[in-house]
Order: sequence, then C-alpha cells, then structure tokens
Amino acid sequence: MNAMEKLNAMMKQKDSRIVAGLDPEISQLPPAYQTALKNGVLEKNVMMDFCKKYIDAVAGYVAALKINSAFFETEEFFPIYRKIAIYAKVQGLFVIGDLKRADIGSTSKAYAKAWLGKEQPFDAITINPYFGTDGVMPFIEVAAENGKGVFVLAKTSNKSSDEIQNLMMFEPKDYIYERVSDLIVNWGKTVSKGEKYSPVGAVVGATHPKEAEALRKRMPNTMFLVPGYGAQGASSKDVTVNFDEKGLGAIVNSSRGLMYAYKKDAYKDIARTDGWEKATEVAAFDAKEDINQALKEEE
Amino acid sequence: MNAMEKLNAMMKQKDSRIVAGLDPEISQLPPAYQTALKNGVLEKNVMMDFCKKYIDAVAGYVAALKINSAFFETEEFFPIYRKIAIYAKVQGLFVIGDLKRADIGSTSKAYAKAWLGKEQPFDAITINPYFGTDGVMPFIEVAAENGKGVFVLAKTSNKSSDEIQNLMMFEPKDYIYERVSDLIVNWGKTVSKGEKYSPVGAVVGATHPKEAEALRKRMPNTMFLVPGYGAQGASSKDVTVNFDEKGLGAIVNSSRGLMYAYKKDAYKDIARTDGWEKATEVAAFDAKEDINQALKEEE
Repeated sequence: MNAMEKLNAMMKQKDSRIVAGLDPEISQLPPAYQTALKNGVLEKNVMMDFCKKYIDAVAGYVAALKINSAFFETEEFFPIYRKIAIYAKVQGLFVIGDLKRADIGSTSKAYAKAWLGKEQPFDAITINPYFGTDGVMPFIEVAAENGKGVFVLAKTSNKSSDEIQNLMMFEPKDYIYERVSDLIVNWGKTVSKGEKYSPVGAVVGATHPKEAEALRKRMPNTMFLVPGYGAQGASSKDVTVNFDEKGLGAIVNSSRGLMYAYKKDAYKDIARTDGWEKATEVAAFDAKEDINQALKEEE
Repeated sequence: MNAMEKLNAMMKQKDSRIVAGLDPEISQLPPAYQTALKNGVLEKNVMMDFCKKYIDAVAGYVAALKINSAFFETEEFFPIYRKIAIYAKVQGLFVIGDLKRADIGSTSKAYAKAWLGKEQPFDAITINPYFGTDGVMPFIEVAAENGKGVFVLAKTSNKSSDEIQNLMMFEPKDYIYERVSDLIVNWGKTVSKGEKYSPVGAVVGATHPKEAEALRKRMPNTMFLVPGYGAQGASSKDVTVNFDEKGLGAIVNSSRGLMYAYKKDAYKDIARTDGWEKATEVAAFDAKEDINQALKEEE
C-alpha cells in the first residue's frame, strides 16, 4: 500500500479527515510556555513539552500531524523537529513534514535524501513545483522508493495565491494552477502502481472551493492536502468538494484552531478549568465531527 | 547602503563577479573527506574542515559565498550551516543563504525571523515566488529592516524550468517568468530608498541568455544572482547579458566548478602536487578572470 492509500486507510479507521498542524509561534502559545521560553532555560525541552502534549491531545481525533519547518530552523529547535515526528509516528499518526522545498534536480536529491530517506520519520513532505519536472522528480522518486509520498503546491490557501497561480494561459486557456495540476497528475503516473491514489498528492487551499471542485475532477487519483480551514476562513462546507465519493482522498489541516484553542471563545472555559490540552482535545474532536457532518449533509 | 549596493561595492573592490557556491555532495568531495565521512567519526568537524578550507581557497577571488541548505538539513550538519556562514563573513564575503523558502505570510515571517534576523550571518537568502505578494513580503520586510536582501526565483537554470516559468499568458502575452519579474520589481519598490539597486534581487539562470537579456532590460534596478555557469553548461559569454553598463548588478555562481576542481582535467595536476585546495583556488581565479574578460570583450 503506498503512502496515500495508507493515509486513506488511517482516515477511515479513525473516522477523521483532519491533519493537525503544528506551527508553534511562540507568542501564541499558552502563557506558561511563553514565560518559560522567554526565560531561555532549557528552550528545547519546553518546546518539546508543548509539542508532545499537543500530539497527545489531538492523537485520538486526527489521522495525521503536519509539522511546519519554519518554526524549527533555529539552532535551538532544529534538533527537536525530527524528534517530534518520531513521537507522532509512535502515536500512530501519518506524519507530514511541511517543508515546501524545491531546487534543481541535483540539489532536490540532497533534500530528498535528508527528509525522505527510509529511516526518516516522515510519511510525506510538501514541495513547490516552480522548477518543473527535473526539480521535483528526485523528491518523488526517493519518496516512492521508500513507501512515502509528496504533496505538491497546486493552489495555495493565501489571498495572493491568485497573482501567479491564477494567471490564465494563452493556449489552452487554463490557469497556472490547472497546468501545475496536470503536471502533478503526470508525475504521479510515473511512480503509480495501479492503486487509486498515487504517491504524489497536491496542496489545494480550502479558501478557494470553486477551484478545489474543478481540481477534484481534474485529478481523480490525487490525494489533497487542504489548508485554510478555520483560522484562514474556510468552513467545513467549503472543504467537502475536496473529497471523493467515498469521503476520502483529502485531508483537512487545522493548525491555529487546535494549537491555540485555549484562546477561543468556544474553548476558553474548558482551558480555564481543565488546561489548554483539554481545550485542544475538544477542538480536535469538534473539527473532526464538523467535517464528517458536512460530508454527511452533502450525501 | 542596502545589501545589494553593498554587494556591488564588494564586487568592484575585489574586481570579481563570482559567488562561490557551497553545495557539498559527499560522494563528490576529495577522497580523504569521503573516507573520513564514511567512517562516521566526528562528522561535523570533517565537513566543517572541508567548508573552511573551501572558503579559504576562494576568498581572495570571489565576492560572495552561497551556501545551499539542502546539504545541511541532517541532524549532523545543520549546526554547522550558520557556523560556515559566520566563518565566511569573517573572511569578508557577502553571504547568501540558498534556502528557496516560501509559505503563507504568517509562516514566511517565522522563516524570515530565523534566517534574516539582525544577528544572523546572512546578507541575503533565496526565496520562491509561487505564493505571491503576501507570502514573500514578510521575507522582504524583515530583510530590508535589517539591511539585508532577498533573491527571488524568476527564471531558474534547470531544463524543466520552461514547464511553468515559460508558459505564455493570455493577456498581455507575457511569459510567467516575466510576470514574476514584474512582481519582483514592484516588491523591490516597496522597500527601496532610492539607491539604484533595490534590496529585492532575482535569480536568473545563465543557461537562458535570451531570457536573461530581456529580463535585464525589464528589471534595471534588480540585482541578478546567476546560477548555471560551468557545470550546468553556460559559458562566460552567456552571462555577460546579465550585467549593467558598469559591469555590475549581477553575480555569477560557480559551485561544482570550484568545489570539485580537483577532478577536472584543467586542475587535476595542480591537485596532485599542491592539494585540492590549490586546484579550487586556481579555478576561482580563472572563473573571476573568465567573466571579467568576457565583459571586456563586450565593451
């Protein structure tokens, strides 16, 4: 079973289509962590403690963990990036390294070896398509060889994504993100072994449901990683278009909505009485149910 | 003086338009390093030793050092990435972190803080434009605040760069890389303080001299970082189009041509008698002269 089919199986088994995002911005963390990190004592342990408790809180209600590298590229935090991934794997989660790497082929190969090697704790990583085929294939080949996958940016969730991704082509009159999607489909075919979903997935922002609907049709064998639900403004109704007829084939990211649930009106009372972890746990349960409910209503 | 004007001044002072690339692929290193790294003893020190000697060998003949992060994202090597940058700064080089990062704004800000903070040893980093304005501005703002710069991928040196970057738009009939270039110019204006070159540079592959010539006209105030000279196939004649009328405004990368000079016909005798460092040193001198000569012939 390839990485994306494994992800489908895990979503089904857990009845959850949520990937918990881990992008710990220090100034947003529960106050006790901010204080501890500001005092600079045992920085690694404090951050590690937050990440572990976050994983413990969500693990029962999500199928995957997506760890954004941006928050771990200091000398203090880099060593714990892989440790967190290992911890999440041990909890039975599908682990995505949200790295968004890209380079020319010989360099992509070095990235691929560093992050998608057999011994690495990542089931998949995110990559950027701007270099084209020879820049992305080393990632895809190393991933496929090791039973892992990649998610290629197709249509990102941010507002300015229109500037380049929604430029219309001369001939045929496609948008750039559609052309990129066709490339993603072809890249998937090169390493596909006949399973429904190929090892090459796509990042498709929840904030653009129209585009997502068109892309779902255009890429029937591509797993979607869907950011933008919650803090970035997309609702559960916006994301249903990303799923296939079995309610699989897509996984919806929630980062800030889970990590900082302790600050939200709906959960701050829980946080006050039972701690931020409980607020995160309930928020993860609610997110899972919210997506499942929206899918049911679609039927 | 902003970062790009500083780079111009350094190129003029050293009479060199070369940036030495540092992308140490272990299997290509001088054999003694391969053996030492294979034996796994003191991995960090062995790699650090190679990088320092490389910097020592090229420092007299290049204006800048570009360190590719792909080769330093293992637990062993990550800690030396910044140490190498510091070492290069101490040798008086302009230091470019070749990271090619990109994400949505809130995440880009985390990357920017990690790599372009005031205390960081990088004068500039490379970034990827695929997310558009709100994804790149945090990099640009943090860079400009701290007297640093960014190089945004416009037209990359690899063969498949055509697939996305050379798609033609519907209206106006521009290529994607031209549209990206216009964005780069505008991003530069937002942080420009009236100096000729803005803090926002562009990566323009030497392997596409026609495109480079058009881009030079389109972006008269943009510093070019030019990969593709040497190992990737572009000659000194191909790169002259990237420079302005003063022979500045562009810096040409050489990585494999310098790092692995010891293996090349032209330098292997030198390596045999005087060591790989001498081969690299002579190759750096030759590269500098090769570009300078080509520019003179253009006059």
